[in-house]
Amino acid sequence: MFIRNCWYAAALSRELTATQPLARTVICEPLVLFRKRDGSPVALEDRCCHRHTPLSIGRCEGDSIRCMYHGLRFDAAGRCVEIPGQLSIADSMRVRAYPVHETAGWLWVWMGDAQRADTRILPIPPWFDCEDWDMRYGMIELKAGYTLINDNLCDFSHTAFVHEKTFAGGERTFAETLPQITSLERGIRVERWITDRRTIEEWLPEDAAPQPSAPPRLDQWIAYDYLVPGVMIMRVEMHAAGTGQRQALRAPSQEPLHANLGIHAVTPVTSDTSRYYYSLGPRSCETRATPGLASEMFAAAVNGFEEDRRTVEAQQENLRRWPLADMQAIRHDRGVLLMSSVMQRLQNEEGDSC
Amino acid sequence: MFIRNCWYAAALSRELTATQPLARTVICEPLVLFRKRDGSPVALEDRCCHRHTPLSIGRCEGDSIRCMYHGLRFDAAGRCVEIPGQLSIADSMRVRAYPVHETAGWLWVWMGDAQRADTRILPIPPWFDCEDWDMRYGMIELKAGYTLINDNLCDFSHTAFVHEKTFAGGERTFAETLPQITSLERGIRVERWITDRRTIEEWLPEDAAPQPSAPPRLDQWIAYDYLVPGVMIMRVEMHAAGTGQRQALRAPSQEPLHANLGIHAVTPVTSDTSRYYYSLGPRSCETRATPGLASEMFAAAVNGFEEDRRTVEAQQENLRRWPLADMQAIRHDRGVLLMSSVMQRLQNEEGDSC
Amino acid sequence: MFIRNCWYAAALSRELTATQPLARTVICEPLVLFRKRDGSPVALEDRCCHRHTPLSIGRCEGDSIRCMYHGLRFDAAGRCVEIPGQLSIADSMRVRAYPVHETAGWLWVWMGDAQRADTRILPIPPWFDCEDWDMRYGMIELKAGYTLINDNLCDFSHTAFVHEKTFAGGERTFAETLPQITSLERGIRVERWITDRRTIEEWLPEDAAPQPSAPPRLDQWIAYDYLVPGVMIMRVEMHAAGTGQRQALRAPSQEPLHANLGIHAVTPVTSDTSRYYYSLGPRSCETRATPGLASEMFAAAVNGFEEDRRTVEAQQENLRRWPLADMQAIRHDRGVLLMSSVMQRLQNEEGDSC
Repeated sequence: MFIRNCWYAAALSRELTATQPLARTVICEPLVLFRKRDGSPVALEDRCCHRHTPLSIGRCEGDSIRCMYHGLRFDAAGRCVEIPGQLSIADSMRVRAYPVHETAGWLWVWMGDAQRADTRILPIPPWFDCEDWDMRYGMIELKAGYTLINDNLCDFSHTAFVHEKTFAGGERTFAETLPQITSLERGIRVERWITDRRTIEEWLPEDAAPQPSAPPRLDQWIAYDYLVPGVMIMRVEMHAAGTGQRQALRAPSQEPLHANLGIHAVTPVTSDTSRYYYSLGPRSCETRATPGLASEMFAAAVNGFEEDRRTVEAQQENLRRWPLADMQAIRHDRGVLLMSSVMQRLQNEEGDSC
Repeated sequence: MFIRNCWYAAALSRELTATQPLARTVICEPLVLFRKRDGSPVALEDRCCHRHTPLSIGRCEGDSIRCMYHGLRFDAAGRCVEIPGQLSIADSMRVRAYPVHETAGWLWVWMGDAQRADTRILPIPPWFDCEDWDMRYGMIELKAGYTLINDNLCDFSHTAFVHEKTFAGGERTFAETLPQITSLERGIRVERWITDRRTIEEWLPEDAAPQPSAPPRLDQWIAYDYLVPGVMIMRVEMHAAGTGQRQALRAPSQEPLHANLGIHAVTPVTSDTSRYYYSLGPRSCETRATPGLASEMFAAAVNGFEEDRRTVEAQQENLRRWPLADMQAIRHDRGVLLMSSVMQRLQNEEGDSC
Repeated sequence: MFIRNCWYAAALSRELTATQPLARTVICEPLVLFRKRDGSPVALEDRCCHRHTPLSIGRCEGDSIRCMYHGLRFDAAGRCVEIPGQLSIADSMRVRAYPVHETAGWLWVWMGDAQRADTRILPIPPWFDCEDWDMRYGMIELKAGYTLINDNLCDFSHTAFVHEKTFAGGERTFAETLPQITSLERGIRVERWITDRRTIEEWLPEDAAPQPSAPPRLDQWIAYDYLVPGVMIMRVEMHAAGTGQRQALRAPSQEPLHANLGIHAVTPVTSDTSRYYYSLGPRSCETRATPGLASEMFAAAVNGFEEDRRTVEAQQENLRRWPLADMQAIRHDRGVLLMSSVMQRLQNEEGDSC
């Protein structure tokens, strides 16, 4: 049901303090996250092996965590290293430890075979440097399964309707024409020009955006990779009107007037609930010139994500009501179906191995 | 489990505006209701055939409704008539449409075979003319299955206890004697005289009713038809004391001093939740003479219905706790058992046909 | 799953008034409790045998209770003695009556074979005289199964961690050494000295307790019987420092400086919810000398019980998440395992007999 041999976003870095354990459930498995004295993160099964009390209501002690029911203490590898009132400790007294990796403001956990944990398949692109971008971070809890959110993000035609007054700014092109979609080893690449758009204020809600008497029109390049298990690396660029026409369907070759980056990650909590982590922002050089830019973009995005939340939660509720009804495909489903076949292939490869 | 070939109350007319779709679940099937430009109502399955998003969070456009996820648009017959980004539309792109009929301030839907939808079996009586009666409308959601509410309404002996201080006004006769019960093709008829009652203020809570030093006593005629799937058409009349005695068990033959009408409809939402719609009021001629009468009757009824709600919800909860325990019958169950056999007969006739 | 032939605490005496029925669920069986005119308590199945309405929303009438749906009335033996509108009453019209016994401020019900109800196995000790103790009473509802609470009370090593800042007052001895545990016919006896403790103010939260410049150290004797189905009779005594050393592991032979008594009872509501009733207090002679003593002890205990509640509820939630995981034993589990084998033996003896 879930792919295991991959990195899931478990938390934002800022959520995990130096002293407090943090409880997070990933693909139905409750984890406790905590930091060692050197700040490095640890992820253990959130269940003392004695009486099953959550370790997340326990206490960080040095590089270990103590269960605050009967005082058993576990090290970062999940081994029990202290049982009050008892000298010897059986080797079986241990809890599962998960590989965890911190990068770009995110904590990623590997839910499958620890031997195969491979930071080379972390979905964060190697060219990402947080100095270059003024990123803001956020998270939403959704009462919807992760596949519905993946589907939402693999087909931006919904922008024209769900985000009619926010991201789309009334632009029907998202739905009326199709983007270029390419298969990747672990996902899909979606690219398109939307020509003759309004300025970057299309990010802002309509009443917040300034309405100049003759707003300049620009061409917008939207390109994202959608990667296993549910990570979107999206780059949006604004270019002078006419650029899109000249480039045909190819990526822009010159420096943009404006660019912003989004890194979003969907993490299944249970089969029908998820967490949606996101970070987004303009280039640092732009935000230095326009101080409020990053915050305004972030606020607009939060509004837009609420629109998605309402939609996918209503959809999830309907799936519960009609568990057997078929979904009928339309042309815009192409990205959804490609991504879903990548997920299926990886699940099949894993089989019952973990 | 539910009869399908019958009319269920889906909403009050006033609940369905000209522009907003309305979501209502009837016998476990979620519907979206909306109005066409000419005001006539439409009822469709509340699920886009593409990705199962509820149409009720969509938008009315002319005589059609648009799914606001990917923009598919459906006409009043449930056919998909637009898919953004796509020219041809498969004939299978459709959602179920339900016959719907609006009358007497109510919206009724036919949940069974559309070919057999027959307005002649609408439970509203042909003699009902809304000019004659000053009706008020209301609705309660109940955490109780519809059969419990049908049972409640088919045996008014409960009035003496559940409504001891409201409808019954302390009158034990409801429980101590039995009404006359007749079988109908699609229900039962229940009739009785309660002789020597207090005046019509028995509708009012005790402390609200004026207490004259010697309140006149009157005879009350209570008669209702209880019809499939759960509709009560009840007429209550007050006559001069002695009338009941002279009429024996027959209906009054002369003009009443006072009369009021109630039309109530129980609609199953799921197997253990329901909606209870009601309309009630005195004759228009009386309300012209006594302006506050209709409102006072309505307020008193709302109080009484709350008493029913508490009772049947507690009963439902106990049925959940003792799913296997037998119910032991008493004499007052006769109407309940007759009505329940009518329902059973119609369910058997339907079999698996819809 | 539950032992039936035993006394369960169903309510505190003060909860059951002279006129209002009280609904309480014990081992998944909903009961209605009420008092007869002479004040003696009655416990019946909380379900009218007619339409399954709870009797607890009914009305006490003399020595009987009336169902307020259709007016059936039941006597203290559960026999239906009145059906409005009906003269003869079938002998099958009855609800189950449960033996109930009131003692020491508690109402106890016998859930098994009524013929075997035996007040000699009431867990209240024969030497208990409410004149001798200034008892306060309380109750908490817990979202945790009764076995988790039994386990909690059969191993006080948790005091060092769960109650680190309340009952334990920072004392690790509870976890670092083991008490003396003896098997009883229907439970276990747990006894220990904690030598060189702070004064009785260890009951109080740290900031509430007076901090004399050199607080006297005392020896504390803690002894309790834990009895089927989940009743703790605990006596705590403070003695001059050095007493514990002299007594070795034996009970104190001289008069204590201070003593308090606790009677606690765990009642299963469902398989994963419980009620925890408790009474506790110092000797009446002490409370006369120190008026606020009983209240302060009670307030401190309420805080401590909240700590237990959080712990066992989190544990219950984890058991739901890992239904198949093994619990690994530690040395401190000895009391837990002994008590659990007593419960198992009694359940086996009962078999399917009730």
